[in-house]
Amino acid sequence: MDWFKQVGRIKYEGRETGNPLAFRHYNPDEVVAGHTMEEHLRFSVAYWHTLTGNGSDPFGTGTMIRSWDRYSAMDLAKARVEAMFEFIGKLGVRYFCFHDRDIAPEGDTLRETNRNLDTIVEMMRGYMKSSGVKLLWNTANMFHHPRFVHGAGTSCNADVYAYAGAQLKKSLEIGKELGAENYVFWGGREGYETLLNTDMELELDNLARLYRMAIDYAREIGFDAQFLIEPKPKEPTKHQYDFDAATTIAFLQRYGLADHFKLNLEANHATLAGHTFEHEIRVARMYGMLGSLDANQGDLLLGWDTDEFPTDLYMTTLTMVELLKNGGLGRGGINFDAKVRRGSFEPEDLFYAHIAGMDSFAKGLKAAARLIEERILDSFIERRYRSFREGIGEQIVSGKATLHTLEQYAMQNREIRNESGRQEWLKAAINEVICSV
Amino acid sequence: MDWFKQVGRIKYEGRETGNPLAFRHYNPDEVVAGHTMEEHLRFSVAYWHTLTGNGSDPFGTGTMIRSWDRYSAMDLAKARVEAMFEFIGKLGVRYFCFHDRDIAPEGDTLRETNRNLDTIVEMMRGYMKSSGVKLLWNTANMFHHPRFVHGAGTSCNADVYAYAGAQLKKSLEIGKELGAENYVFWGGREGYETLLNTDMELELDNLARLYRMAIDYAREIGFDAQFLIEPKPKEPTKHQYDFDAATTIAFLQRYGLADHFKLNLEANHATLAGHTFEHEIRVARMYGMLGSLDANQGDLLLGWDTDEFPTDLYMTTLTMVELLKNGGLGRGGINFDAKVRRGSFEPEDLFYAHIAGMDSFAKGLKAAARLIEERILDSFIERRYRSFREGIGEQIVSGKATLHTLEQYAMQNREIRNESGRQEWLKAAINEVICSV
Amino acid sequence: MDWFKQVGRIKYEGRETGNPLAFRHYNPDEVVAGHTMEEHLRFSVAYWHTLTGNGSDPFGTGTMIRSWDRYSAMDLAKARVEAMFEFIGKLGVRYFCFHDRDIAPEGDTLRETNRNLDTIVEMMRGYMKSSGVKLLWNTANMFHHPRFVHGAGTSCNADVYAYAGAQLKKSLEIGKELGAENYVFWGGREGYETLLNTDMELELDNLARLYRMAIDYAREIGFDAQFLIEPKPKEPTKHQYDFDAATTIAFLQRYGLADHFKLNLEANHATLAGHTFEHEIRVARMYGMLGSLDANQGDLLLGWDTDEFPTDLYMTTLTMVELLKNGGLGRGGINFDAKVRRGSFEPEDLFYAHIAGMDSFAKGLKAAARLIEERILDSFIERRYRSFREGIGEQIVSGKATLHTLEQYAMQNREIRNESGRQEWLKAAINEVICSV
Amino acid sequence: MDWFKQVGRIKYEGRETGNPLAFRHYNPDEVVAGHTMEEHLRFSVAYWHTLTGNGSDPFGTGTMIRSWDRYSAMDLAKARVEAMFEFIGKLGVRYFCFHDRDIAPEGDTLRETNRNLDTIVEMMRGYMKSSGVKLLWNTANMFHHPRFVHGAGTSCNADVYAYAGAQLKKSLEIGKELGAENYVFWGGREGYETLLNTDMELELDNLARLYRMAIDYAREIGFDAQFLIEPKPKEPTKHQYDFDAATTIAFLQRYGLADHFKLNLEANHATLAGHTFEHEIRVARMYGMLGSLDANQGDLLLGWDTDEFPTDLYMTTLTMVELLKNGGLGRGGINFDAKVRRGSFEPEDLFYAHIAGMDSFAKGLKAAARLIEERILDSFIERRYRSFREGIGEQIVSGKATLHTLEQYAMQNREIRNESGRQEWLKAAINEVICSV
Repeated sequence: MDWFKQVGRIKYEGRETGNPLAFRHYNPDEVVAGHTMEEHLRFSVAYWHTLTGNGSDPFGTGTMIRSWDRYSAMDLAKARVEAMFEFIGKLGVRYFCFHDRDIAPEGDTLRETNRNLDTIVEMMRGYMKSSGVKLLWNTANMFHHPRFVHGAGTSCNADVYAYAGAQLKKSLEIGKELGAENYVFWGGREGYETLLNTDMELELDNLARLYRMAIDYAREIGFDAQFLIEPKPKEPTKHQYDFDAATTIAFLQRYGLADHFKLNLEANHATLAGHTFEHEIRVARMYGMLGSLDANQGDLLLGWDTDEFPTDLYMTTLTMVELLKNGGLGRGGINFDAKVRRGSFEPEDLFYAHIAGMDSFAKGLKAAARLIEERILDSFIERRYRSFREGIGEQIVSGKATLHTLEQYAMQNREIRNESGRQEWLKAAINEVICSV
Repeated sequence: MDWFKQVGRIKYEGRETGNPLAFRHYNPDEVVAGHTMEEHLRFSVAYWHTLTGNGSDPFGTGTMIRSWDRYSAMDLAKARVEAMFEFIGKLGVRYFCFHDRDIAPEGDTLRETNRNLDTIVEMMRGYMKSSGVKLLWNTANMFHHPRFVHGAGTSCNADVYAYAGAQLKKSLEIGKELGAENYVFWGGREGYETLLNTDMELELDNLARLYRMAIDYAREIGFDAQFLIEPKPKEPTKHQYDFDAATTIAFLQRYGLADHFKLNLEANHATLAGHTFEHEIRVARMYGMLGSLDANQGDLLLGWDTDEFPTDLYMTTLTMVELLKNGGLGRGGINFDAKVRRGSFEPEDLFYAHIAGMDSFAKGLKAAARLIEERILDSFIERRYRSFREGIGEQIVSGKATLHTLEQYAMQNREIRNESGRQEWLKAAINEVICSV
Repeated sequence: MDWFKQVGRIKYEGRETGNPLAFRHYNPDEVVAGHTMEEHLRFSVAYWHTLTGNGSDPFGTGTMIRSWDRYSAMDLAKARVEAMFEFIGKLGVRYFCFHDRDIAPEGDTLRETNRNLDTIVEMMRGYMKSSGVKLLWNTANMFHHPRFVHGAGTSCNADVYAYAGAQLKKSLEIGKELGAENYVFWGGREGYETLLNTDMELELDNLARLYRMAIDYAREIGFDAQFLIEPKPKEPTKHQYDFDAATTIAFLQRYGLADHFKLNLEANHATLAGHTFEHEIRVARMYGMLGSLDANQGDLLLGWDTDEFPTDLYMTTLTMVELLKNGGLGRGGINFDAKVRRGSFEPEDLFYAHIAGMDSFAKGLKAAARLIEERILDSFIERRYRSFREGIGEQIVSGKATLHTLEQYAMQNREIRNESGRQEWLKAAINEVICSV
Repeated sequence: MDWFKQVGRIKYEGRETGNPLAFRHYNPDEVVAGHTMEEHLRFSVAYWHTLTGNGSDPFGTGTMIRSWDRYSAMDLAKARVEAMFEFIGKLGVRYFCFHDRDIAPEGDTLRETNRNLDTIVEMMRGYMKSSGVKLLWNTANMFHHPRFVHGAGTSCNADVYAYAGAQLKKSLEIGKELGAENYVFWGGREGYETLLNTDMELELDNLARLYRMAIDYAREIGFDAQFLIEPKPKEPTKHQYDFDAATTIAFLQRYGLADHFKLNLEANHATLAGHTFEHEIRVARMYGMLGSLDANQGDLLLGWDTDEFPTDLYMTTLTMVELLKNGGLGRGGINFDAKVRRGSFEPEDLFYAHIAGMDSFAKGLKAAARLIEERILDSFIERRYRSFREGIGEQIVSGKATLHTLEQYAMQNREIRNESGRQEWLKAAINEVICSV
């Protein structure tokens, strides 16, 4: 088939090309900071937005023109697999991600649903083998069906919990089957609508129990993917338990699960929680929990998850600084959990949007590499905290200081001299670097 | 002196009184849910808002008419002590709270500053003894002076850190001297303005070190107050490290400090972080970290800390539900970290505002007691989660379930039946109870 | 048919009844402030939420259990009409509202769509006649279908604009046919996603042109309903042109349309725009533009339109104060543009929710009447502005003052004395009144 | 004197210079889009932030190191004038702005206050003459003093209103004296804290009266500056009457004042109101009300006015697109209503910050010129709306269409074909242009 017949394989064409469907910045083979761009930027296509999403919103039905929509049921599911590998191939990306319900329809019974999955997974395995494309992560959609109205692992209904467990088991098997590098938990309904009817403690205990069962089962079947939790503060719930990186970490620490999980952080989820994306990444890094990224961006004047394609070069630059500092993402990647606008309903828009996102990250990578290479931030920070490398500062950092010694020091130290934090200068420097790479 | 000569001691006068300066709901001796109101509602007056605050804001200077403002320096400090005990006596409250810099002015040197503190603390001790009023908590103001421009325990400047340590040492001594029941850490400048110039990990390591020194020194001097951390997400900083309850707990767990601290939660800080107050209290309860409350309310259409006096009966009712469920606050209390509006600049407004707050909590207490006594929420929740008390639900909760057994159960369990969460009914029930007590 | 067989007609049963499906406060025949409650509170049921809504959200499919869902197409449309009149009858409400697409499905052609409408409208007319229920307002849904992806009256595509005009024409005819008291314009897609591709001036010129055509056509067919515009700031658009009351008024004034329109204000739209509901109502009152109300409430910690049933007694009380001050709503009413939560999916919840809303407004009405009768706010305000009724104040208000006379006055007027705004006292007074009616 | 002795005149030094105090992009004499940069970018220094601001915030006292702070009272005022002209000269800017209370202290009486002003104005006049620097606008600070606690032109106290009138009179005289090109009204306290105590209609009537007196007096003294109103939604008030551009326009239209005023728009005020800056500018353009700009930027994750220096190149680019489309700002300018962060307290930071802002606007100007020159947005928009230039679209635009003709057209027009809005492609194009100029 030729699902995107209007588009050939996308090339890197540099600055002067007039072809709007070519990369300007992303060149997979170009070496930056010791690795090829492709090695740094383990881009992934999100099945749900790109193959399944139809552009509907709470006030309108779908708008997307998708050639595979002439099919239905399992035929549609198969057509999407074909289209996905064609899309990813033309784009030159190496990874993809999916929820179980993205790739195959539910049947009348769980058994039939699982058979549908088996058919598609088998088909995918073939395409993956021939194309070399890999599964960055898979996950179970335990939020869309009405049965999950009150949650899945935190449902008030044990039957629903059991169903979620069964669905999770199958998803782990699929991950194993397809060699997923990670497995993601996003608890879209794991939260509450009102505390008035909620036993938060029982719900969180149960969620932890489900995670433990997943760990046990993955070990049992030899599925060694990195487990990831994806925080989001709210939407669709009034309050989602995995509010942000720190909240998720507190939960994992409380239940003794911290060694088994890392975080899959998303830009738009960060801003909905009141944080910058780089803040969430920094927090995860500090706790040793940075796993993978969902790349998108929100509109900070809107209060819901817009999942726009990432084009903000400030965000991509600061994200790439954190990633380079982290020595990369390991098994993680940069998954475009982003959807074309409802008004961008033509097939070409899928390419424009992914190219915009990939180019923005490529540009961000170059800027980040320059910032690090020239030690623009590092030398400023190193100097800024220099007082902790000698004298009383060294005693503090080495754990020798007490309130007694600090008081003695402070009593004799009459004049304290602070230095400017130079925020405006630093912001200008970021501008300069972004525009010069 | 007679600093509030227009006002006698405030009385409880019941519903029909026309006296606007009388309590309608708060009667300290009335027994509700097994204790007197005074035992439940350990109200505290905040020195900074009530004695020191002048009504200034970023666009205007102070407006408050305060009879003690004719004095200055140490005379002013002494006048405020007198006025405070007169105020608290007329109001019939039993606790107060302060920052070190609220009660005495800084001198030219730290030594002189500490001498100023000693004078006032000595004076306070006398008043406390004669009045029976107690210190709910004290704290060190390590955010107001320019030296703390880049933080105190997270400053980039070791000299500032040492100064903070000295100041903290003195505050612990004052707490010991005055028999404070708690000691609070609010890190107003412990955060960052921009990640571009910030070594977050060093800053948090240093903050943890300061906490450990405080623990050691308190033990050394036999100061057995409960240590409390007060979360706030931002303001004055762009990002404050103790963002909310869960973030603070993650930090304490990481640094092995969780056994030494509880949380002092504030309503307006909760909403600035995107949470309801009752959410933050519930989270703290779940982690066994509920310490004390800063009672106020924000304006959810404004993005800064307005610290209004608490009059929202929904909030006071749900807060008191959490408190009753917690078996009370132990050593903690309900501190009015609330300020009269800049336009409420007359001395009478201090009384109106505190009475409004106290009455609102008294009403909330009665409503909460009714809700619990009639098991309105409890019976709903008990029924809602009943499936976890038998069959597969019991196996899940008791830890016997695995993904295998869940799958087996789900495969044979064809029809899942959920029940309504009845949010609208529950909200109407809350209205009914609030208006009927 | 008996679509809600479990429920008889809902009665007013006073405070002590144990029947959770009875009104406690709303008694249609009770006289408050000179009119019966039914006269004050012209409640209306919203077809879209109550008959058509299925509980879906962007992360999940519908959950609602609705007995009519066993039908489809025109049979479903007819079943809904029956169910609606049964529902409204049991509830004892007198008005309803709908969009054209709520009541009948689109056909393959516009002509067929209109025929579908004719069938249902004819059916409705019979039910209205026999039941005495009236149409508060109708409107055209010009946002849901993909054709309106870029707007209707502000589309960049003249074919879409023409379609919108045709649809509007039919809706005006339906309004005429059913004797609608008002006709509403809510421009769900009349806004933009990005200014980068938008000719705002042409779009607004075109929108004004469409309004003029509607005015002309209504006059032509003798449809004398009050035209209403319903402001909303955003969602589904990034920016909706009718952002709030003031923005809409500026638009109407610019295009010479102000005499032909009033406003239909919605509580949740107000808060999304950064205003309280009472603010929007006050603004509309001031401009003589208060038309009708969409009664619901938002969650101020969430950034989207949650359309919850209104239960906040502060909001209902202050709304009713504005309404009483306005001498009522005239042809307008209080339409429950509110939906039961996705988790409140049982048919009973529709009753619980409407009763909660109606009772909350009934309680608000009583509290408002008391506030006005006792002149609690009025006497405070009268006294507060008294300086404008004499001396220099009188000169200012009467237009005699100039900067010269003001300067002369100010130069000799050495001491200015302001008085407290007493916000805390006023808030306590509101609490007292709400809990005492 | 030499108030900034460490800094010589700042030069344009191009991309490769290592001097952090040099402009890279702003070269006053460089011609872009037909005019020199200096003609396009009529930059202005804000007296209050740069000369008077001390870095205090609600939780901390001032931090700024300013050499003139060793003086006090009128000596301080004079020193600031010297410093201002030195600063502005070194920076190479041509305009400044001030509030009356920025430049001279209040005396014990209004008469003395005015004498203080006279002294400074006389001094300024000399400096302006010798330097060629001009006054972009002046204004009266009627929000800072406690007398304005309840407003100035909207105070509930006629004495305060009279005082405001007198102060306004003097400010108009100063504007006349110094040849101000504009005169600004920012109603910092013209709003309300709570509707419970507010007579909104009287307050707005009075505000309109004050504006009329100002118009009359300006005409009387021959002061022909453009009058500007600066919208802001809130802060310090709960609600400020001039909420945003559209609200202000509605007010001016209602009171017949629209011909006498234009708008002074501020980026951070726009975002606090829920709008982008370019949105507010577009609205003002459409209504013919674009006057001048206050250039800064907010932090969209914070809910207060941070007044940061503008460095966001997306914002400066889109602002400059609007300005070029508007044919420039006429008498208006680009005033840096921006303050260095509290942590950027060294004198050098004033230069870094202004340079960052000026360079960002220079870069934005170049990008905007390129976008317009290459018709990147224009050609897209022209094509997008082409259907309104022929056939039914032409009839709509020319006012010939009716609902009848639209219906006829729609009935026979079976298939409607929309086109993608291409938002992702447009965003990528903006990135490409910003990085290529």
